Amino acid sequence: MSSRLAAFLNPRSVALVGCPSDLTRPGARPLLYLQKHGYPGQIYPVNPRHAEIGGLRAYPSLADLPERPDAVWVGVPGGDVPAVLEEAARLKIPNAIILTAGFGETDAAGRARQEALRAIADAAGMTVLGPNMLGFINCWDRVPLTFSPAGGIDRLIPGALGIASQSGALGGVVVNRAFDRMIGVSAMVSTGNEIGITVSECLEYFAEDPRTRAVALAAEGIRDGERFKAAAGRLLETGKPLVALKLGRSSAGRRNALTHTGALAGSHEAWRAVARQLSIVDVETFEELVEVAGFLSRERRSPRRGVGVLTTSGGASIMTADQLEARGLALPRLSASTGRALAALLPEYAVTRDNPVDVTAGLSEALFEQVLATVVGDERIDTVLTAVTGARGVERARNVARVAHAADKPVVVCWLGGSLTDAGISVLDTEGVACFRNPRTAALALAAARDFAAAQSAWARRNARWAALERARLRPPAARPGPLSYAEAAALARRAGIPLAPEALVATPAAAARAARRLGFPVVLKVVARDLPHKTEAGALALNLRTADEVSRAAGRLLTTARRYRAEGLLVQPMVDGVEVLVGVTRDPTFGPLLVVGAGGVQAELLGDTTARPLPVTRGEILAMLREVRSLGVLRGFRGAPAADVPALVAAIAGVARLAGALGERLQALDVNPIVVGARGRGAWAVDLLLETRPVAVR
Amino acid sequence: MSSRLAAFLNPRSVALVGCPSDLTRPGARPLLYLQKHGYPGQIYPVNPRHAEIGGLRAYPSLADLPERPDAVWVGVPGGDVPAVLEEAARLKIPNAIILTAGFGETDAAGRARQEALRAIADAAGMTVLGPNMLGFINCWDRVPLTFSPAGGIDRLIPGALGIASQSGALGGVVVNRAFDRMIGVSAMVSTGNEIGITVSECLEYFAEDPRTRAVALAAEGIRDGERFKAAAGRLLETGKPLVALKLGRSSAGRRNALTHTGALAGSHEAWRAVARQLSIVDVETFEELVEVAGFLSRERRSPRRGVGVLTTSGGASIMTADQLEARGLALPRLSASTGRALAALLPEYAVTRDNPVDVTAGLSEALFEQVLATVVGDERIDTVLTAVTGARGVERARNVARVAHAADKPVVVCWLGGSLTDAGISVLDTEGVACFRNPRTAALALAAARDFAAAQSAWARRNARWAALERARLRPPAARPGPLSYAEAAALARRAGIPLAPEALVATPAAAARAARRLGFPVVLKVVARDLPHKTEAGALALNLRTADEVSRAAGRLLTTARRYRAEGLLVQPMVDGVEVLVGVTRDPTFGPLLVVGAGGVQAELLGDTTARPLPVTRGEILAMLREVRSLGVLRGFRGAPAADVPALVAAIAGVARLAGALGERLQALDVNPIVVGARGRGAWAVDLLLETRPVAVR
Repeated sequence: MSSRLAAFLNPRSVALVGCPSDLTRPGARPLLYLQKHGYPGQIYPVNPRHAEIGGLRAYPSLADLPERPDAVWVGVPGGDVPAVLEEAARLKIPNAIILTAGFGETDAAGRARQEALRAIADAAGMTVLGPNMLGFINCWDRVPLTFSPAGGIDRLIPGALGIASQSGALGGVVVNRAFDRMIGVSAMVSTGNEIGITVSECLEYFAEDPRTRAVALAAEGIRDGERFKAAAGRLLETGKPLVALKLGRSSAGRRNALTHTGALAGSHEAWRAVARQLSIVDVETFEELVEVAGFLSRERRSPRRGVGVLTTSGGASIMTADQLEARGLALPRLSASTGRALAALLPEYAVTRDNPVDVTAGLSEALFEQVLATVVGDERIDTVLTAVTGARGVERARNVARVAHAADKPVVVCWLGGSLTDAGISVLDTEGVACFRNPRTAALALAAARDFAAAQSAWARRNARWAALERARLRPPAARPGPLSYAEAAALARRAGIPLAPEALVATPAAAARAARRLGFPVVLKVVARDLPHKTEAGALALNLRTADEVSRAAGRLLTTARRYRAEGLLVQPMVDGVEVLVGVTRDPTFGPLLVVGAGGVQAELLGDTTARPLPVTRGEILAMLREVRSLGVLRGFRGAPAADVPALVAAIAGVARLAGALGERLQALDVNPIVVGARGRGAWAVDLLLETRPVAVR
Repeated sequence: MSSRLAAFLNPRSVALVGCPSDLTRPGARPLLYLQKHGYPGQIYPVNPRHAEIGGLRAYPSLADLPERPDAVWVGVPGGDVPAVLEEAARLKIPNAIILTAGFGETDAAGRARQEALRAIADAAGMTVLGPNMLGFINCWDRVPLTFSPAGGIDRLIPGALGIASQSGALGGVVVNRAFDRMIGVSAMVSTGNEIGITVSECLEYFAEDPRTRAVALAAEGIRDGERFKAAAGRLLETGKPLVALKLGRSSAGRRNALTHTGALAGSHEAWRAVARQLSIVDVETFEELVEVAGFLSRERRSPRRGVGVLTTSGGASIMTADQLEARGLALPRLSASTGRALAALLPEYAVTRDNPVDVTAGLSEALFEQVLATVVGDERIDTVLTAVTGARGVERARNVARVAHAADKPVVVCWLGGSLTDAGISVLDTEGVACFRNPRTAALALAAARDFAAAQSAWARRNARWAALERARLRPPAARPGPLSYAEAAALARRAGIPLAPEALVATPAAAARAARRLGFPVVLKVVARDLPHKTEAGALALNLRTADEVSRAAGRLLTTARRYRAEGLLVQPMVDGVEVLVGVTRDPTFGPLLVVGAGGVQAELLGDTTARPLPVTRGEILAMLREVRSLGVLRGFRGAPAADVPALVAAIAGVARLAGALGERLQALDVNPIVVGARGRGAWAVDLLLETRPVAVR
């Protein structure tokens, strides 16, 4: 698939349908931009009312062109788009870029018009970008085939950053901001309503494109969740970090995401689960998107040991340390020899010689360079961040660049200031030294480099691991959608390796008392019924029954409740003591089944203290999930309580994942809430279970 | 106090000690800056080796000046500072600004040198700024008496934003960034090591300064917590929002805060408690500091009803809605009449006519202006945010400014883009229309305006309220520092109105059983001892005892434990059922006593799910605190559990605040953990108590 995008982004000839002869009108932008940046291919303006546009011969229609163009740009009003696309199909033009808006992002009629376009393209095997986007900019091959004003920028800077954006306007913002910082771009593709090319396909392309080393993504909603996950995984495999600005976090945002490019924004939680699994850097502003992705497109060495910080202001020093520590980046003490060297170099008033080293603003440029080189030489650190506040500072910038180029480790700058610092920053940008405008972004970029390096090596071993986890294949139950009976669900769960507490399903008080004696007191009694998911509220639960008498009285009471719910019977279980963990699987409409882990009881709901991962998962990911849930800190033992049986819990969660894997498309929802985890060596026991299947479409 | 700063910032004459004759050297900056911006007073360079500097007559020493200057700038090496200051004291020069670093921010010797300076100044009644700062810039009166390169900016822009910063470098960054956006500044004061003027005094000054309407603060650590709180309160009273970039959040950051300007950074939690109480806008970046404070210095109308959003890009529309909703800003549906007006104006493809209204990029400038005016006219919204992405857009900017100036509600802009948007943004900046570079900052500013309006009206009634809360004055216990006995603490707590559970302190198993019968089963037994704060871990607790027999056996067991701890005895309490709430008072070294509220049990510690406020507090603040603790959502009733007795809980917490108030300086720590809150009407009961006093210095 990615190969078709390589060809698409580098057409040898382009027909521009809807290009006005008045070049001051917006519609002329693609023509002007192609000419301005020296597009090497043929440009064919198509306009029935003019014979020449912008110094080029214009043609009345596509059929009149002297050759079949590689691509057609469709910039005509909405009503005329189908006819242009049909003509292009008839002429077997392989690629079309549809600027026009007013399709799937609007209403039912718009969606119908969009489906009609899709049918034309599909029938002809045509590759389509759009509709409702602003085109693409291929910087290496000088193809700014775009309506975005970013195409009119003075100079395209070819480089290693790939940009994919559903919104054409936002894609243009990213290009403009990247070029402002001298960050080279391989290509920017805006995908709009995505009837053909999606952002996932762009990621596939960038993964294989040898000129791209990192990718910036601005997305409203992912339409092809499975393909997206695979493409992001491929980027991870090929060592190309993906930095994403995901829009549509709020309900109003999602409302507009639906109407805008017709994307289903999905729940933001599902997106975050995917981002965590695939080591996608989730950012919130354009500054972060551009500076972090730009940094990663040029620098991949990871600050594993720690960061050495050199500043010219105490305030900057504190700000920088704050942000690095917030991201878990260590600031190790410098070695004794560095300390001695700094003491020899520095005047009396610059006494903060530890990490961060604050030399104040008074040093000469030559001395500052020496100090920087000294810090760079310290073997305890593998990255140097220098946070400076001086104004202008062209000489400072040149010296820093010299040290950075000679260094065997990354040297990055954080330059705090306003317009007075522009000249210095511009020198660093030109020299290719990473320079951030604020310590928060600098810390984010360094942490991303560290995390990506770790994720990449873990990813390499991942597929084999989850395959092993899922090896024990289950025969799935008969396809009957809806909630399963407890007995059916329990049988499946046991086969998947979910450790159910010892239990008995009974129908009378006497049978309950007998079962309790066999299982051992104290016991729990529950009404088991398909349409009774929340037992506590319904009064369908009796805890801590200590004698046969208590059991049989409680059973009598519960059986009255049971009659209201077409119950299967009463479940008798021994009381299990330990930490309660909620485990479940839910199906996200975009990204498919997600494993959810949280604290049991009301905390998961009340605190939202849960985490999720798309299935399948590895054991390592299950462990990581347990660390992410703050309330599950109790598993490590707390306030005198013993540490819990985490290995048993992980095995139980793996069982849940295995059951979900076996059910595949047929799984609607699975709740194992709670799993009760005893002290180490005492096991983990699922004490309740709810499993719902769904109808699966015949394929 | 503020009057001395008004005079300090506007000296009629300034002596510059340490001014070099070579004007290219950094030391000449104050002279150059004063001359450049037309300082109207007398400038006296003091330099024994030159008779003329920068076209001005230079003098060998302060004693040789033709008059006693209002202020002396001390820019000499560290060793020479005391002599200069002594001479200034002898000459009764009232004000000194000490640039030189190498004092309290370094080591013990530096701190001693600093104390020597303080002694000189105090003896002479001299007002000192510094040492270790970069001076101040008084824009209205043209006094850029500073070493900061921001003093060399092309043009000072007098305006309504006051800036206080301990770090001179960061103060300069704020000034530079404000001027870049045409945000006028009343004055910037950098305070450094603060042997005289502190940031708190700057806030007092800005509160009374009629030219200042909002304040931006960059602070590493507050030295005078009580004064700071009072000054921030005064800003609230005078209707001037305070926006703060607080440094020193991390441990490495604090380490450097200690060495940098010698400030105690304090715990960041205490800072956050103060910020919440005083409605200080807590920001994290310079962009936020400048754009939010700049906005508030010019605009104070609050978006109470809701924000109308108009965008030219679906992506921008979603980003904007995301951020507004994240800050709780409503985007109401527009009225039917606005809908009809928009439908009449807009072309077919711009169909997103609800809020946000997305008109896409294709509209003419004239039409865009009409649409904007239409949205502005909607009576359902009281603020309009237009998020645009077009490049350059000078015409667009002029039109927006015209609509904004004519509007009866705030019209603000968020312009997404890079350098291509600079020209348009510059027009808005010049026209005084608030323009943000990213939706996150725009939302932060609008939310700050809303919150400040609410806080201001609440503040007006606050003092009367907490006075009422504390009216019941207690006779504090004898001044004996250390943990009080349980009996002493309980007696005080009862008098303060803290509802203790019914209880009996006993010494034998038989007495325990008798007490239990009287109190009613089931009961709890605890060992009560001063040196046993954590009973669960020590096995000093027996829960849920149901019979006299169980009580007396447990009492026997606990008495064995008790002997290890010099216990006062065993406490018998009936089991109380309900939601457990942790309440306590801790003493922050900077800001004094803080009331802390969190979920009881392990959650407060494990989740850090607590909140705090400096004492005193009002009942309204106690209710706000209960809302801030997420786990305490259970108080509202949850999953079938009944709503808890919140009024009783608030009364109990008010009792804790009252007890802390009565103990005043003598309070070291107070833990009421937990208070158990029953269902509505069932009360709230403190079931454990720990009170520690401290010695109080004689004043």
